[in-house]
Amino acid sequence: MRTPLIVTAVFLLATFAVAQSQPQLNLMPMPASVQVGTGQLPINQLFSVAVTGSHDASLDSAVQRFVTQLSRQTGIPFRSKPGAPPTLQIHAEHGRQAVQKLGEDESYELTVTDSGAKLTAPTSLGVLRGLQTFLQLVQIAPSGFAAPAVAIKDQPRFPWRGTLIDVSRHFIPIDVLKRNIDGMAAVKMNVLHWHLSDDQGFRVESKVFPKLTGMGSDGMFYTQAEIREFIAYAHDRGVRVMPEFDIPGHTHSWYPGYPELASGSGPYTLDGDGLDPIMDPTRETTYKFLEKFIAEMARLFPDAYFHIGGDEVDGKQWDANPQIQAFIHAHGMKNNQDLQAYFNQRLQKIVAKNHKIMVGWDEILHPDLPKTIIVQSWRGQESLAAAAKQGYSGLLSFGYYLDLMWPAARHYAVDPMADAAATLTSEEKSRILGGESCQWAEWVTPENIDSHIWPRNAAIAERLWSPQEVKDAASMYTRMNAVSLDLEWLGLTHRSARLHMLHRMAGPGDITALRNLADVVEPVKDYNRWSDAKGPIDFHAPLTRMIDAVYPESDAARHFGDLVQTFVKSDCKDFAAEAQIRSWLALWRDNDARLNPLLEQSSLLQEEGIISLNLATLGAAGLTAMDYIDKSERAPDSWKTQQLAIIDQASKPSADLLLMVAAPLRQLVEASAAQRN
Amino acid sequence: MRTPLIVTAVFLLATFAVAQSQPQLNLMPMPASVQVGTGQLPINQLFSVAVTGSHDASLDSAVQRFVTQLSRQTGIPFRSKPGAPPTLQIHAEHGRQAVQKLGEDESYELTVTDSGAKLTAPTSLGVLRGLQTFLQLVQIAPSGFAAPAVAIKDQPRFPWRGTLIDVSRHFIPIDVLKRNIDGMAAVKMNVLHWHLSDDQGFRVESKVFPKLTGMGSDGMFYTQAEIREFIAYAHDRGVRVMPEFDIPGHTHSWYPGYPELASGSGPYTLDGDGLDPIMDPTRETTYKFLEKFIAEMARLFPDAYFHIGGDEVDGKQWDANPQIQAFIHAHGMKNNQDLQAYFNQRLQKIVAKNHKIMVGWDEILHPDLPKTIIVQSWRGQESLAAAAKQGYSGLLSFGYYLDLMWPAARHYAVDPMADAAATLTSEEKSRILGGESCQWAEWVTPENIDSHIWPRNAAIAERLWSPQEVKDAASMYTRMNAVSLDLEWLGLTHRSARLHMLHRMAGPGDITALRNLADVVEPVKDYNRWSDAKGPIDFHAPLTRMIDAVYPESDAARHFGDLVQTFVKSDCKDFAAEAQIRSWLALWRDNDARLNPLLEQSSLLQEEGIISLNLATLGAAGLTAMDYIDKSERAPDSWKTQQLAIIDQASKPSADLLLMVAAPLRQLVEASAAQRN
Repeated sequence: MRTPLIVTAVFLLATFAVAQSQPQLNLMPMPASVQVGTGQLPINQLFSVAVTGSHDASLDSAVQRFVTQLSRQTGIPFRSKPGAPPTLQIHAEHGRQAVQKLGEDESYELTVTDSGAKLTAPTSLGVLRGLQTFLQLVQIAPSGFAAPAVAIKDQPRFPWRGTLIDVSRHFIPIDVLKRNIDGMAAVKMNVLHWHLSDDQGFRVESKVFPKLTGMGSDGMFYTQAEIREFIAYAHDRGVRVMPEFDIPGHTHSWYPGYPELASGSGPYTLDGDGLDPIMDPTRETTYKFLEKFIAEMARLFPDAYFHIGGDEVDGKQWDANPQIQAFIHAHGMKNNQDLQAYFNQRLQKIVAKNHKIMVGWDEILHPDLPKTIIVQSWRGQESLAAAAKQGYSGLLSFGYYLDLMWPAARHYAVDPMADAAATLTSEEKSRILGGESCQWAEWVTPENIDSHIWPRNAAIAERLWSPQEVKDAASMYTRMNAVSLDLEWLGLTHRSARLHMLHRMAGPGDITALRNLADVVEPVKDYNRWSDAKGPIDFHAPLTRMIDAVYPESDAARHFGDLVQTFVKSDCKDFAAEAQIRSWLALWRDNDARLNPLLEQSSLLQEEGIISLNLATLGAAGLTAMDYIDKSERAPDSWKTQQLAIIDQASKPSADLLLMVAAPLRQLVEASAAQRN
Repeated sequence: MRTPLIVTAVFLLATFAVAQSQPQLNLMPMPASVQVGTGQLPINQLFSVAVTGSHDASLDSAVQRFVTQLSRQTGIPFRSKPGAPPTLQIHAEHGRQAVQKLGEDESYELTVTDSGAKLTAPTSLGVLRGLQTFLQLVQIAPSGFAAPAVAIKDQPRFPWRGTLIDVSRHFIPIDVLKRNIDGMAAVKMNVLHWHLSDDQGFRVESKVFPKLTGMGSDGMFYTQAEIREFIAYAHDRGVRVMPEFDIPGHTHSWYPGYPELASGSGPYTLDGDGLDPIMDPTRETTYKFLEKFIAEMARLFPDAYFHIGGDEVDGKQWDANPQIQAFIHAHGMKNNQDLQAYFNQRLQKIVAKNHKIMVGWDEILHPDLPKTIIVQSWRGQESLAAAAKQGYSGLLSFGYYLDLMWPAARHYAVDPMADAAATLTSEEKSRILGGESCQWAEWVTPENIDSHIWPRNAAIAERLWSPQEVKDAASMYTRMNAVSLDLEWLGLTHRSARLHMLHRMAGPGDITALRNLADVVEPVKDYNRWSDAKGPIDFHAPLTRMIDAVYPESDAARHFGDLVQTFVKSDCKDFAAEAQIRSWLALWRDNDARLNPLLEQSSLLQEEGIISLNLATLGAAGLTAMDYIDKSERAPDSWKTQQLAIIDQASKPSADLLLMVAAPLRQLVEASAAQRN
């Protein structure tokens, strides 16, 4: 099902050419093949578009959105002259499927010369992708806005390029999802995996079982009308919407309304008890319920795939229920895993009866299930490869968990075809359909979810679209920075929300000092915020701490690290780098004194005292190190030991934040102690 | 009709108390009376509201919006406990008028103690005003969010506090207007004066005369359904919507569709000819047309007031038309002004027949018109006072033209009751109903209109609401800065749009140097951009220059000016000020070198070379001046003369921009040459 991979030498040549003689092409994801020509196509008030070939309402509105976006990006109100030749000619051979299909042709060719541009594609879906590339090509130049002359042939490496958004732990309104769809379309992602139910809330109106939201949510859920409108919105942008209803675990929210589905005795309240109740797979009434429920949802969600979750089934309630244990024995099963497989088999039949293909997490993999199901792996390429060997198709999400707060480069380095997957036969490889980034919603609200997804998601989008060989992290960061700005034009708030959140903490005055601190910290990684939380998460608590406002990845710290690297590599002789390093260090050294009045006046900033002081200490240590280096004097060992101890201390999380400049500071201190006297 | 003015000693005492012992109250407009108490009301998850007294859907939705806004501002998801006493009790004696009336009671009383808050008002309209005050009271404190204990009695000084938005020169979509309504409501303004037609475009659907928009617009106009929905939106927020159809001048857009209305022979095209065609007041068919048109619009716009423009009637077409001149003679008129008065009399009857009160600009004032009309003065308090003496009610707009790019303090200093108006009898004074800021749209787009209106409009709002004695500019700026942030929370883009626009000019890289320049420049003032334009304005040209992106008022330049003032007043001994001044100067001196690569690569920045260089020159001159001062050495006269000449040069507009730090630089240079050796 995967589009065959065509990486040509052209691509590599092209990037070289780009790097050497042309302005940087801020394309992301990088197309499969780019040939850079000479000259450029001016974009001015006369810009116009003509569409030939297959034509439908979806294409027309896509072209309209494209023109609006280009006009906004350039600030030019277009006023083409009637009869003049179009600037951009668009031709699609065929239209699109009414319901977007996995593997539907997304390829396109885009040729730009100094006299015009041509975008052709086998389908209008390919045209959507090509229009995004065109938007990214247009840049300001000394002569005005222009698209450089290029010949691009492009197609995705993987047919399934998704983002999971969890809307259960914290409800995310439709308008926030829409702007994220816009972002996904901008980087050519094509699946929104909508995690619609979990312990903390059931988010879809069911007309058959109204108590699912009536008692299983805090009143925040999507009506069916909203869902239909949203799916049409996503379809218009070339994004499939796959629902997930996670069963039999992660189902607390089902039971306040329908306690008879649970394996324990209840009663259940949405906010109550720390229990992890799970569904009872031994009662026929459970399947009767699911028959009706899945039929209703299968009608509501047109996508061919239906995700039933299946992850992290905590068997305690099964163990504790004698009836369930008796059932296991009576049916010759060995354990709870067999029981879940039995459940999944029954489930798969219901899903298939509704003309859907079942998707589930790693845990559903069991030889009793038909090969048509799809396994989504949060465990890794090994698990994915094992499934592929057994004949199952799979998706990679391991390595793409945005909530783990990894830097973009770390996600970027994760390849679905790496490690165990690299050894597969080509037939087995073809079962690896792509991947999905995952935005679990324990720690996000509508206010900060954009900044947790973007711009890092663009790096994952590139991994899944572009040839495997495209993997230079420095180039990725440059292009991601450009895309990040484009995404703010589209209405995403991943950069702008921080300012509001910092002012909420510090009041309306000057917050420069707070921003200086925010610029160089990152949230703790992996699940460390959970372990620090000590006890169950209160999903109703405000998310208004510094950790909630800062970006998952600090650009300033990365730049500072690069600068120190450059400086040390130059044998401490790069004076431009030195001046910049010194000015950063002085800023940090003096920042704590400036910040303290803000910290004192705000309950939301009282935990930041230590990390602010640490930053000042590091700044001072760094300046002393620079003084030693300047004087070509070797820093005394005792001093070095003391500083490294301070840096160790400052490297520890404080207020769930990491001071990201600690590592380059260590490098500076070590360099100062390695000076030849 | 004006609410009687009650300024009590309490108010003045309160502001003193605030300044001395309490945190700054960021209230804007400042209420008529504020008594600060002790303690504060915590705002936490248990926050709740109860409403008693008069109740209607409009109040309910206002309270709902208030709670949402407070939750967003604090980041707290409220979860009040059922049965617990409410944090804020709201009581309105009476409901609101279905169509908001001029002079409808907007007063309220708000009492906050450490155990709860109470908001009472004679009408639910007063409750709307009080809720905005409550939102402004809530601030972050060491113990969490809280509202300080206060007793506020508040009411507007003037009953008419409006903003004119011109949507003809550049079309402004409904969503942009809506966020501006939100902003107006936040600062208690109560009239949107909607300038709906002008030479450049007719913006309202007429079902009776569809060619008004069909041929008199570029396809961008409001449908009647949109207008009705928008008026309801404004009404919900306590804002009246008064339409203006400017006649008989400013009417080019009427004639492509209906050339028979014009005084010349036509034909007319929307973009054509530099003509200023005006309506023919001598033909009965003109009045037949207006009868039908005004009847239709009077039904569409429920407000009691109907603005017919009447300004700047260029009589050339009347002079050139022998039939019109014959008409003037035949009716014993002396001149074109008499003809316009005749037209206005006829018009007033039509307006009155439709149960509306006619409003027009200064020029409509003529003794033949009934005293019921309202005169809006762009000419000044003298004109307003003259009208009041003759028995006419009036509004001041002179001094409140936002498109003239004045600093907020200059608008703030303009009082409707000053100058000639101050000498009026109290009866005459009562005819001065208030005022309106004006945002004419020659140089704005949906992208930058917010920054042209806000935050300066908040200063005008305060002038029209608060007691005349509230006039300290420094306090105004502090509070306006706080309000400005609140307005961005509401969705206005007056601060955030600049970043996008600067990146459009400079590309996706680091734009710090461009921002440094943008921070210290302002657009040329008054109508100087027009005169520089040389020739007619092209209303279809992109508005993407630096002048379009920068704020009308430079905060950085104002702060720098204050700093220099402080420094010079300290006899150049304030070392803290000196350090800050030096760091600004060094930044500017070095900025041109950093900025040049950006300027070179962008067509949109090529005109900024001179001003960037000027800034660098001023920075260097300032540093030299500081060196003289530091050494207590008198700067040589020849040096001083040379520097002042450079500053003179740098004070001249370049690229339609003013370098706002030139004046404080002059002060520094003069101080350095006044040193005692």
